[in-house]
Amino acid sequence: MTRQAFPSPSPCPLRPAEGPKEACGVFGVYGHPDAANLTYFGLYALQHRGQESAGIVASNGREITDHRGMGLVSEVFNTRVIGELKGHLALGHVRYSTTGSSLLKNAQPFLVSFGGNPIALGHNGNLTNALSLRRALEGSGSIFQTSMDSEVFVHLLVRHLKNGLAEALLRCLPQAQGAYSLGMMTKDTLIGARDPYGFRPLCLGRLEGGAWVLSSETCALDLVQAEYVRDVEPGEIVLIDHNGLSSHRMETPKRKAFCIFEYVYFARPDSNIFGHNVYRIRKRFGERLADEFPDIGADVTMPFPDSGNYAGLGFGERSGIPLEIGMIRNHYVGRTFIQPSQSLRDLGVRIKLNPVREVIKGKRVVIIEDSIIRGTTSRTRIKTLRDAGAKEIHMLVSCPPHRFPCFYGIDFSTKGELIAANHSVEEVARFIGLDSLGYLSLEGMVAATGFDPPSFCLACFNGDYPVAPDHDFSKFEMEC
Amino acid sequence: MTRQAFPSPSPCPLRPAEGPKEACGVFGVYGHPDAANLTYFGLYALQHRGQESAGIVASNGREITDHRGMGLVSEVFNTRVIGELKGHLALGHVRYSTTGSSLLKNAQPFLVSFGGNPIALGHNGNLTNALSLRRALEGSGSIFQTSMDSEVFVHLLVRHLKNGLAEALLRCLPQAQGAYSLGMMTKDTLIGARDPYGFRPLCLGRLEGGAWVLSSETCALDLVQAEYVRDVEPGEIVLIDHNGLSSHRMETPKRKAFCIFEYVYFARPDSNIFGHNVYRIRKRFGERLADEFPDIGADVTMPFPDSGNYAGLGFGERSGIPLEIGMIRNHYVGRTFIQPSQSLRDLGVRIKLNPVREVIKGKRVVIIEDSIIRGTTSRTRIKTLRDAGAKEIHMLVSCPPHRFPCFYGIDFSTKGELIAANHSVEEVARFIGLDSLGYLSLEGMVAATGFDPPSFCLACFNGDYPVAPDHDFSKFEMEC
Amino acid sequence: MTRQAFPSPSPCPLRPAEGPKEACGVFGVYGHPDAANLTYFGLYALQHRGQESAGIVASNGREITDHRGMGLVSEVFNTRVIGELKGHLALGHVRYSTTGSSLLKNAQPFLVSFGGNPIALGHNGNLTNALSLRRALEGSGSIFQTSMDSEVFVHLLVRHLKNGLAEALLRCLPQAQGAYSLGMMTKDTLIGARDPYGFRPLCLGRLEGGAWVLSSETCALDLVQAEYVRDVEPGEIVLIDHNGLSSHRMETPKRKAFCIFEYVYFARPDSNIFGHNVYRIRKRFGERLADEFPDIGADVTMPFPDSGNYAGLGFGERSGIPLEIGMIRNHYVGRTFIQPSQSLRDLGVRIKLNPVREVIKGKRVVIIEDSIIRGTTSRTRIKTLRDAGAKEIHMLVSCPPHRFPCFYGIDFSTKGELIAANHSVEEVARFIGLDSLGYLSLEGMVAATGFDPPSFCLACFNGDYPVAPDHDFSKFEMEC
Amino acid sequence: MTRQAFPSPSPCPLRPAEGPKEACGVFGVYGHPDAANLTYFGLYALQHRGQESAGIVASNGREITDHRGMGLVSEVFNTRVIGELKGHLALGHVRYSTTGSSLLKNAQPFLVSFGGNPIALGHNGNLTNALSLRRALEGSGSIFQTSMDSEVFVHLLVRHLKNGLAEALLRCLPQAQGAYSLGMMTKDTLIGARDPYGFRPLCLGRLEGGAWVLSSETCALDLVQAEYVRDVEPGEIVLIDHNGLSSHRMETPKRKAFCIFEYVYFARPDSNIFGHNVYRIRKRFGERLADEFPDIGADVTMPFPDSGNYAGLGFGERSGIPLEIGMIRNHYVGRTFIQPSQSLRDLGVRIKLNPVREVIKGKRVVIIEDSIIRGTTSRTRIKTLRDAGAKEIHMLVSCPPHRFPCFYGIDFSTKGELIAANHSVEEVARFIGLDSLGYLSLEGMVAATGFDPPSFCLACFNGDYPVAPDHDFSKFEMEC
Repeated sequence: MTRQAFPSPSPCPLRPAEGPKEACGVFGVYGHPDAANLTYFGLYALQHRGQESAGIVASNGREITDHRGMGLVSEVFNTRVIGELKGHLALGHVRYSTTGSSLLKNAQPFLVSFGGNPIALGHNGNLTNALSLRRALEGSGSIFQTSMDSEVFVHLLVRHLKNGLAEALLRCLPQAQGAYSLGMMTKDTLIGARDPYGFRPLCLGRLEGGAWVLSSETCALDLVQAEYVRDVEPGEIVLIDHNGLSSHRMETPKRKAFCIFEYVYFARPDSNIFGHNVYRIRKRFGERLADEFPDIGADVTMPFPDSGNYAGLGFGERSGIPLEIGMIRNHYVGRTFIQPSQSLRDLGVRIKLNPVREVIKGKRVVIIEDSIIRGTTSRTRIKTLRDAGAKEIHMLVSCPPHRFPCFYGIDFSTKGELIAANHSVEEVARFIGLDSLGYLSLEGMVAATGFDPPSFCLACFNGDYPVAPDHDFSKFEMEC
Repeated sequence: MTRQAFPSPSPCPLRPAEGPKEACGVFGVYGHPDAANLTYFGLYALQHRGQESAGIVASNGREITDHRGMGLVSEVFNTRVIGELKGHLALGHVRYSTTGSSLLKNAQPFLVSFGGNPIALGHNGNLTNALSLRRALEGSGSIFQTSMDSEVFVHLLVRHLKNGLAEALLRCLPQAQGAYSLGMMTKDTLIGARDPYGFRPLCLGRLEGGAWVLSSETCALDLVQAEYVRDVEPGEIVLIDHNGLSSHRMETPKRKAFCIFEYVYFARPDSNIFGHNVYRIRKRFGERLADEFPDIGADVTMPFPDSGNYAGLGFGERSGIPLEIGMIRNHYVGRTFIQPSQSLRDLGVRIKLNPVREVIKGKRVVIIEDSIIRGTTSRTRIKTLRDAGAKEIHMLVSCPPHRFPCFYGIDFSTKGELIAANHSVEEVARFIGLDSLGYLSLEGMVAATGFDPPSFCLACFNGDYPVAPDHDFSKFEMEC
Repeated sequence: MTRQAFPSPSPCPLRPAEGPKEACGVFGVYGHPDAANLTYFGLYALQHRGQESAGIVASNGREITDHRGMGLVSEVFNTRVIGELKGHLALGHVRYSTTGSSLLKNAQPFLVSFGGNPIALGHNGNLTNALSLRRALEGSGSIFQTSMDSEVFVHLLVRHLKNGLAEALLRCLPQAQGAYSLGMMTKDTLIGARDPYGFRPLCLGRLEGGAWVLSSETCALDLVQAEYVRDVEPGEIVLIDHNGLSSHRMETPKRKAFCIFEYVYFARPDSNIFGHNVYRIRKRFGERLADEFPDIGADVTMPFPDSGNYAGLGFGERSGIPLEIGMIRNHYVGRTFIQPSQSLRDLGVRIKLNPVREVIKGKRVVIIEDSIIRGTTSRTRIKTLRDAGAKEIHMLVSCPPHRFPCFYGIDFSTKGELIAANHSVEEVARFIGLDSLGYLSLEGMVAATGFDPPSFCLACFNGDYPVAPDHDFSKFEMEC
Repeated sequence: MTRQAFPSPSPCPLRPAEGPKEACGVFGVYGHPDAANLTYFGLYALQHRGQESAGIVASNGREITDHRGMGLVSEVFNTRVIGELKGHLALGHVRYSTTGSSLLKNAQPFLVSFGGNPIALGHNGNLTNALSLRRALEGSGSIFQTSMDSEVFVHLLVRHLKNGLAEALLRCLPQAQGAYSLGMMTKDTLIGARDPYGFRPLCLGRLEGGAWVLSSETCALDLVQAEYVRDVEPGEIVLIDHNGLSSHRMETPKRKAFCIFEYVYFARPDSNIFGHNVYRIRKRFGERLADEFPDIGADVTMPFPDSGNYAGLGFGERSGIPLEIGMIRNHYVGRTFIQPSQSLRDLGVRIKLNPVREVIKGKRVVIIEDSIIRGTTSRTRIKTLRDAGAKEIHMLVSCPPHRFPCFYGIDFSTKGELIAANHSVEEVARFIGLDSLGYLSLEGMVAATGFDPPSFCLACFNGDYPVAPDHDFSKFEMEC
């Protein structure tokens, strides 16, 4: 193996996100006169789950209105637009594309009018048999409008609608394989559904006046001051209309497959998902790291903000190595950014995080990081710490090495992007420029969650896939 | 005193910033082929000093180009614009208006062409005799272009230019009273100047190839990888051209008047200003709070992020009360924001910071806050902590109560905005909804800085103004 | 009949167009390396046929690219966009909606990807059985993307594609009833088709290098310097690919039904359509008016610019009454326009056309107008002529009264909009404020065209509809 | 002389206007509650006098508001903006730059605040001593804000304001040399002024309720339904305030110098300027051409639309050669336009005007054109007529050859742009591609106006300049 086999550091270390990207967030309201306004706030709270596009569909029972756009919730919507989304029923979505390129027409909720009746759908997750479903539907005359895997749900659904909505869902959803937490709506019904393995979270809440709320995470319930009621169960379909909520069950496997990476990185720390609090579990990851690496020999605990903060707190407390916030975030860094001219190439590194020299100089530092995907971001940051005079730099990561791609909605879908898939821990440490590198053990990570019995999808760590992808899985977008 | 005398909580607690606003940031480069590109990065690092407008003027020695706009640096500039700002000399500015309304024509650097020669100026600070200077200049035929106090500098300057640039500056600057850290440029010269009291910071750095950098704070030197050389001294004028740097001195008073609030709140923690590191001093403010309030009786130390984090670290370490990051920031909150509809009024509160119920519930919490200006933001936040189940809430503030307006560039320029100007500590505590409230003592704050002898402007705390404002100071904008 | 039965004059006489709106224009190129650029010019020449939206789809045989937008061709496209529309094959469309509301998603060419293969379609005309076709297709699972009648063509087509493109077209087009001149394309084939009655024009041209051009009117051939070859015949389908042009025929009725209103108003005077020159025929309409109204008794012939100019020339020459251009057009009137405030209501009238008082004062004027639809525009203009001092005002119209709606692509689809449907000539004259009003006779109009034998659709004048519309014709958009 | 000495035909014959550009239009209202809305309409009517930028300043007697932008009136203003321009007093301006580059800051009305009092100015015309005035003012400390010659008026004015507004104007205006028709306003006064030679038009009108209107041309009075009162006289200053109108006189020369090119090309045909109707005079130019060229030997009279139409009518009537509108205008040609790709270079020609082949083929055509500046536009158009099959093409021009630059506000300010300055009539005819070319004689042109005694500036035809320009006239913009 030669040095060149490593991914070369990205020229502008800002654009590549500091971590992997989640597929999507879903939020819906039934029974509140300001349903769209509440949904706007709900999407704000779920913005971390998708920043490429946002959309809301609303209904007053007779008319449906919708708005979608590229960008953040705050960029896509304004007061006038929200004011035009009238009604007691609304469904919203934030998206980071995993399948379906990043175009306005692929923004969700996806809305069609069928026989004069609208159907809207927002999807979090990723299907593993979308292409074969699409080809079969086209074979009998269906014309697809987008390149999203999510669109197959709607084409399947309309072919069963004559049996009624609930029955149609029970017939069409099981044909889809893979991960899906869905929000759907018609003119008068809000629908939530979760695949039988329960890969992605989805929960139900209730507002004071009785309105129902559907949300990917509980942090959005907090924001709209809804009380958490329960999770939508794996394999469950809920329909909410003027008769209240009714629940319908698909056949489900014995095991579940909650995405553990939601705890490690994706979900907001103030959310409870899969029934447990994210902040707490992250802090326990840090405590567990302190237990697994008792001899790290550092003067200072330094999390990479903000995702490493919570494990950092746990590690600092348990290890007794004092915590310092030695990398200062520039809160005004926008998403668009001018590439430095050739001669200034190195400047970009410090834009987002600048080390406090006085804190670091001459110190043995232990960095707490949530995960390492490609290693390039860590590498550039470690260099700035060296420049600031750190004596030793160690890194502890609050999950095991990422060695396998994810087919259920996370954007590291090939091995090539994962540095640990092809390199040993020592090689990774050398690439990043560390004095030492340690990962939390798989057992330690699972134990720290406190789940009993554990029900996680751990495929990105151990290659054990709960649902096998179609052989042509990777060709989906190319062929649509 | 009745309850109504309190400021009523702002309906949308997002828009009012969490703290007072700084006037401006200045950044300049002489002697680098990508001067404007470097300046763009410098302004990025100084963005916290002003978010209303940004501008850059550049020169290649023959031609001058400029661009200004409302909004953040990342919004105002793009690659094309930066590419058109050619030359080895550039001056940039970020602004939050203190005098001069918030209009594009008031964006800085202010640029004029005089007798075919351009002069540009960026100003951090606030003059106390701007209106009388302006009236006198108009009396002899000058026409002003803006409503900024800063414009008087240029009109004064051109009337002395026949004496040469350095001499003209030495004659005109002393006519201006109050606070000013200035960056100026002509076609071929970069100029830095600081008022005789030195209210606002200004420093000099150098790039590897020898190019000079002028900056409000050292964090911008770090970003462009310039080495810190020294501060521009109070009362000093520096001219940088192809002959290098020359220094000129105005007459100065014995005492200095560094703005201590730069340490408390304004400056970035990774900057060194007035010769000392901000992070370090903030952490010592927290340690001193622990010393002054040893019996606070709390289970958890919880800083309000991010400005309270550093004092929070110091307090937690010294007091032994464990630190928790119990308020989660939504990193995607934009600056524009849809007002919730009437019935949803309360929702805005949690948009920016959401408490982690699991961390707070049933706990006695001590909040570490940098300062309290109007008290309304703290009040709404405390309410969300109560809702999350905190048992007791105490607050410690890392500076004394703000009782007097600032005339030198901070935007609390009337007593009416300062809750502590009209209310006792107990009243403030009651308004905010605290179980107890404590402020750092004036002596404690000064001592924690470690300055010897201390040379601060403490006017906002004790009313002792180093430079008296004109009687018509407050009428400036109205009359322009 | 009371005065109130008249349509009330529109408050802002600018927005309501001075005449009825045409459905659309189609333009395509096969075999030129700059196909999209040529198409852009072709659409420019056809802009009078549709100003609401414009679009171009291009193909290089492997990849298809497209761009659509609301507004004029000059607003929708720019150099960068045209540069990205690569290939030797392009299809363009300008649209004024007759069915399908005025939304971006209803802009044409309509493009879908079916089984990985793109199909694009641009339609001029209007179907009379679109709703029943749509309902039938939905019944077997098709999901429609737009509210345009044109979309049924594509859904019909894909269900026959396994038989090959030509055969599929021959099977699906006859199911559509009404008016259609179509441009279609796949990755490698340009298609033109015209309904069996030939309501709307469509012609073929050829460029110097041999490339084929398809266009609604010959004026677009002139602009791109293509030579006119022949019209696409009623009931003909032409396919153009690397093998050249092949022609296929649907079954056709004996009679044709060319829209005579294309000659009266729609088509550009420099076009030849249905085999004859428009300018010539319009001038002959004016000559015929002079023959039918020999005793008009006027001092001055005054056409309403520009649509009345050509008949005006003919009338002036034949009658000997000298022509004056007494209404001056403001060439800078934009399409958007500020409503005058309540107190200034009347001002809008003169914005577009201002009378030259010196030409009109004290004169007996005969106005030559192409047609009267609602009468409101004429009414406001006549008032300005009265104000300018005209002694008598007579009006001659170069077609008979419009008494019946059009179902084939012109936007007066209900009788309510047509003043002559409900009022006698004398009543119309009184409403408009004329001393006398005369219309060209139906026989005179047809005779003036010189067609032998005549083959026109005259339904809007005499109610004789070549193709009967479905009973639910008018509900199409409402129900989609 | 070789053929190469001719200006080469511009690649895209659209962008270069078909004729020279006028400097500006001015419009003001005093005493109407919707003054800004009226001014908006007035500017619409004056749009032909300037299309680069537009602006309106309004006052309610206490507060002044303003808006300016690049582009057409319809692009710069919208309902919201007009609604914010409150008050009974407004001044508007449309501009095509002659001095002062084409930038937003050079858009007029130019507005300054002096000692808290606003002064606004809109200028039509061009000064011949602007640079020397500017240098003198700078010498005593004035800082200029723009690169417009017009700005000197304001700097001169404020130095005399202590003497009262009328007296200040009487002292400062005579220092300016050259052409100026001015509209000015303060918070409570509308001012009109015209240079002593009266180069450019300016007139006064009155609305029904008594409000005063100031306008460059009467067509704008028509639009707002104001009655024409009289012209502002050469050398006159009028002030309109709550006391009504007062008139003040500068010293004036015996002769006047009305720009005769306003009649030939600039002014709108429906305007009366310098006391006479433009349409009438243009028609007489055509009649006079028929008298001066009786043996032209053509079958068809064909004006180049629209500027040649009026002389065309006169020529056709007098000569008996029948008029045809043989070039069809595309009314949808926008101001921005995509350059055809290299291989399509020739296409642009026909975009704006397409010949009607049926009218031209085999005919001897006489073109009536208002003027020839560079000859390139005519040349490309003549080529399209040849392609359309014209047998002979003759051209008659309704003014003499342009041989000298204009210093008073028209944009052919160097000899190089004027083809007739360097070439004989025969050479021009050959360059354009004509069978013959004839110009109206100077005497004929003047006689056709019917002025007695004539009082025109004829400098662009005969080089006789009423006011000599400064030697550094041409350097103005470069040096500002």
